[in-house]
Amino acid sequence: MIERPLVGILGGMGPAATVDFYSKLIAATPASTDEEHLKVMIWADPSVPDRTKAIVRGGEDPTPKLVNGAQRLKDAGAAFYVVTCNGAHAFLPRVRQQVDLEYLSIVEVTAEHLAALPYVSSAGLLATDATLTAGLYQESLAASNLTPVLPDAAGQHAVMEAIYAVKAGSLTAEQERALVEVAESLVGQGADVIVAACTEIPLALSAEDSPRPLIDPSILLANQVVQKASAWNK
Amino acid sequence: MIERPLVGILGGMGPAATVDFYSKLIAATPASTDEEHLKVMIWADPSVPDRTKAIVRGGEDPTPKLVNGAQRLKDAGAAFYVVTCNGAHAFLPRVRQQVDLEYLSIVEVTAEHLAALPYVSSAGLLATDATLTAGLYQESLAASNLTPVLPDAAGQHAVMEAIYAVKAGSLTAEQERALVEVAESLVGQGADVIVAACTEIPLALSAEDSPRPLIDPSILLANQVVQKASAWNK
Repeated sequence: MIERPLVGILGGMGPAATVDFYSKLIAATPASTDEEHLKVMIWADPSVPDRTKAIVRGGEDPTPKLVNGAQRLKDAGAAFYVVTCNGAHAFLPRVRQQVDLEYLSIVEVTAEHLAALPYVSSAGLLATDATLTAGLYQESLAASNLTPVLPDAAGQHAVMEAIYAVKAGSLTAEQERALVEVAESLVGQGADVIVAACTEIPLALSAEDSPRPLIDPSILLANQVVQKASAWNK
Repeated sequence: MIERPLVGILGGMGPAATVDFYSKLIAATPASTDEEHLKVMIWADPSVPDRTKAIVRGGEDPTPKLVNGAQRLKDAGAAFYVVTCNGAHAFLPRVRQQVDLEYLSIVEVTAEHLAALPYVSSAGLLATDATLTAGLYQESLAASNLTPVLPDAAGQHAVMEAIYAVKAGSLTAEQERALVEVAESLVGQGADVIVAACTEIPLALSAEDSPRPLIDPSILLANQVVQKASAWNK
């Protein structure tokens, strides 16, 4: 029997998004018994300082806690890891300087996927202030000649409200509707697709309610993990 | 800020049941921000040998892999751990001999809960052959003067089929209906409640479809974890 590589998941940011990612990873795995599923370690420390507060408002730096988590995954023997929080990716290059363990970037996986879609020239971003301010998707999309489309200030406020509501487990139908309206405004500005560029967004906006195809980076990342893990011993 | 204890989850048996438990743990946690959630490490090694094959048919002993998982959780600093598989509990006393780390037993938590319900004198068990053959619930229930009610051979076969289908991600409506019929047969034999005594059962039988109150040990265990973790520093 081939020993599968240990897949590291740095989660907890937030916990519900971690559950969502693990669930999508399981769905992406071709398995008909427990034994055929991936070997996974999840380090979920929800006390990692808020990424938006850190990037936008000079709050506590999350890097040390991310370094700690990555080190735990490395110590346990993870072959590589993923981080189930888009905003945290702004800190990962610095984490990598301290913990020499490869990670799959949810941002890069998504940008590559979008670049390969012939009908997409601009992508609407539903993301945290952290992810947008850090320019994570804007840079990756621009590198593929794709135009990022961002909400206006009021729309971005509604996005943040929905994200924090998912984290609090208190999302209302009104907040869900507001998110659909923001997505519609992005389409009005020319977005060909809506990118759920925060791992809480798929928990607040369904593909059915999205006015254009909803690109879920968590699913893309899950597929990439399965592909990388299955190629590990070959 | 009080540092929360690290909660260990020994999962992967199966993966979907692990997601289900983590999801219930999050729901059981009184939190309105990421930071208020529990710090969790999940060790999900789905290659732990099948518990039913081991107990019923003399298959490979899962103890070494369980010991390995428990050791990983202990090494990472877990304050205590839970195992999201009922059948695996048959091996935990031996695991404890090798890894000195406290675990909360899903079986004991459930038996204590049932013993405190005034209307319950007998409990129908939907469980794997492993859990039933090891007598895990029968012993705990008997200690509280509760009568366990088990399916007949055909019913038990339907239960196992549903459980393996959940693990394979291939549960059919027919298998779900068969499970409801088994639950009804347990009620016919006098069961006051139906115990989802395998962590895959809540993914195959909903509380709404159960002919009597469905007792979900995963929820009871999640509540117990939250209680124990919040009392940790007091």
